[in-house]
Amino acid sequence: MDFFENQRKRIQAFLRDYLEKKARELGQVNPWGRDACDRLAAFTLGGKMIRGALTALSARMYGFSDPSETLKAGAAIELLQSAFLIHDDIMDGDETRRGEPSLFYQYQRWGEKRRFSDPLLFGQSMGICVGDIAFFLLIDILSGLEVPPAIRQRITGLCAGEIAATCTAQMQDVHWGYSEEPEEEQDILNLYVHKTGRYTFGLPLSVGAILAGQPEETLGTLQRLGERLGIVFQIKDDELGLYGSEEEIGKPVGSDLGEGKKTLFMHYLFKEASLDEREKLKRISASGKVGSSDLNYVRGLLDAHGIGERIGKTLSRYAEEARILIDSLDGTVERYRTALKELLEYLLERRS
Amino acid sequence: MDFFENQRKRIQAFLRDYLEKKARELGQVNPWGRDACDRLAAFTLGGKMIRGALTALSARMYGFSDPSETLKAGAAIELLQSAFLIHDDIMDGDETRRGEPSLFYQYQRWGEKRRFSDPLLFGQSMGICVGDIAFFLLIDILSGLEVPPAIRQRITGLCAGEIAATCTAQMQDVHWGYSEEPEEEQDILNLYVHKTGRYTFGLPLSVGAILAGQPEETLGTLQRLGERLGIVFQIKDDELGLYGSEEEIGKPVGSDLGEGKKTLFMHYLFKEASLDEREKLKRISASGKVGSSDLNYVRGLLDAHGIGERIGKTLSRYAEEARILIDSLDGTVERYRTALKELLEYLLERRS
Repeated sequence: MDFFENQRKRIQAFLRDYLEKKARELGQVNPWGRDACDRLAAFTLGGKMIRGALTALSARMYGFSDPSETLKAGAAIELLQSAFLIHDDIMDGDETRRGEPSLFYQYQRWGEKRRFSDPLLFGQSMGICVGDIAFFLLIDILSGLEVPPAIRQRITGLCAGEIAATCTAQMQDVHWGYSEEPEEEQDILNLYVHKTGRYTFGLPLSVGAILAGQPEETLGTLQRLGERLGIVFQIKDDELGLYGSEEEIGKPVGSDLGEGKKTLFMHYLFKEASLDEREKLKRISASGKVGSSDLNYVRGLLDAHGIGERIGKTLSRYAEEARILIDSLDGTVERYRTALKELLEYLLERRS
Repeated sequence: MDFFENQRKRIQAFLRDYLEKKARELGQVNPWGRDACDRLAAFTLGGKMIRGALTALSARMYGFSDPSETLKAGAAIELLQSAFLIHDDIMDGDETRRGEPSLFYQYQRWGEKRRFSDPLLFGQSMGICVGDIAFFLLIDILSGLEVPPAIRQRITGLCAGEIAATCTAQMQDVHWGYSEEPEEEQDILNLYVHKTGRYTFGLPLSVGAILAGQPEETLGTLQRLGERLGIVFQIKDDELGLYGSEEEIGKPVGSDLGEGKKTLFMHYLFKEASLDEREKLKRISASGKVGSSDLNYVRGLLDAHGIGERIGKTLSRYAEEARILIDSLDGTVERYRTALKELLEYLLERRS
């Protein structure tokens, strides 16, 4: 994972400079311009930056080695991640992210101190704006890519389509958080693919490949790989949300549970649970915030019904499909294919 | 205003087809993809589309006459307007827009019918997503412009910067809605320029000029013109918000007042009001929703302190500056300069 760590540092350095420049520019509109960019910098620089690094990995895997342009593209992908998380935290009412107050909640507290009439709406509103700004800073970076125009156009067009698709998946995730409609396993996996897989893996891999001048067919394979990696990533995310430590995952354990998120864990459990257990699970899902006794109850049920094992099998199946797809990537530099496999192993083992 | 009406019909036709195509594409992610595009179409097609038409006007004024590409650019600008309004209505808690339920409120009511635990947050969340989708559909359209690459790049880059600046201004508008800090007249005019003028006038005029291959200097003049038009437009907007009819403006009269918006009307009034009057005005500004007796009280005070006349003078000054700037637009087609002046007169007289 040295490659990823190295890329993270480069992207951090780029974004620090870039966001300082933008803080000065937008600061000319009014002082909130600097405030937004400073908070965006603090938030974005704290990320693992796997998505951004993946762009560089993919570009190099296909033989493209212009570090400055892969860096810009990776930084744009990281700003996308920030924009999504900022808006998502508003939707989920999540007050903690990466161990710090989430962005809208920073503003909410600021408004509380000043006794604003509706600090929550104030915080949400400012968070919507900062997320929107992040979206257009990423477009600003992409529009400044110094690559052949046709490549810049492909990257911008792909990003637009993939981001719109991710937002569409997010709508379903929001809806499911409120509804009790039963879903098929396939519906949940479909959500994982579109909500997580596309923008986390398929998009960065594809952007890297486009930088390297790869044709559309290549992108198809990378999208399929991204779907598998996305499923693995999201299942592990769900697992950490149930079994991780707050310190490591940077937000309260069990928060997804209280928000009624339809995870594969809960889906499997629901199918196996008795009527009484289901009723209790529904109550917990609608509770907003989950205490330790509820969390322990759910963990106990998951254990009793052997859900962990079943999840493990699903995880292994998609991981194996991903490995096969990585091996099938023709005409790529082996070193970076190996790094991609290391990433997969990391995704399977990560604790944060 | 025939030119504008004609352009509106064309942009409507383009957007109807485009959003139907996107509804099919995003509908493949899940059914919310179609839902989002259908609501976006219903919302966007109901607009006056002055911004989109202005792009075409500017392009023709500078001698560019490719109707298909000016149409796309204009349609992109209209999607931008939709995205802003959708997010703004969430921030302001405005339940009505263009005489219909605002977009987040449509979802809120949908959630209320289904007895969701937090229909407001459900509505806000879905609204955030649809606004985000609209942002990236506009980028999708821009990335598909069939114009020389350097022109496409300039347009995309300009849009990114102008949208980020508008969001920054929106942050200030949100903050002022909660705070009682006194502002200088210049601060309010500055907000009008950045929140309204840039994206409503400066940006569409500049995009048209870029399509026609105009250099950066031209854009500087158009931005200055846009600032004046923006001030005129926003002051009239404030006036209609106080004196218009709900039927014509499509939202409750006095809603800005209850949201504590810092308008030039209220700024002038505050400076002139007695201590007692100020206290009452502050109470009204913090009330959320304003009844007819409060509205009549404010109108009475505005009258008593001669604020209407003073506003009229400010309006005339900026309108005159705009006229002079329009006359100074070198090397342009006179017919379209005339249309621009007609637009200015329309802005001064509009009732909706």
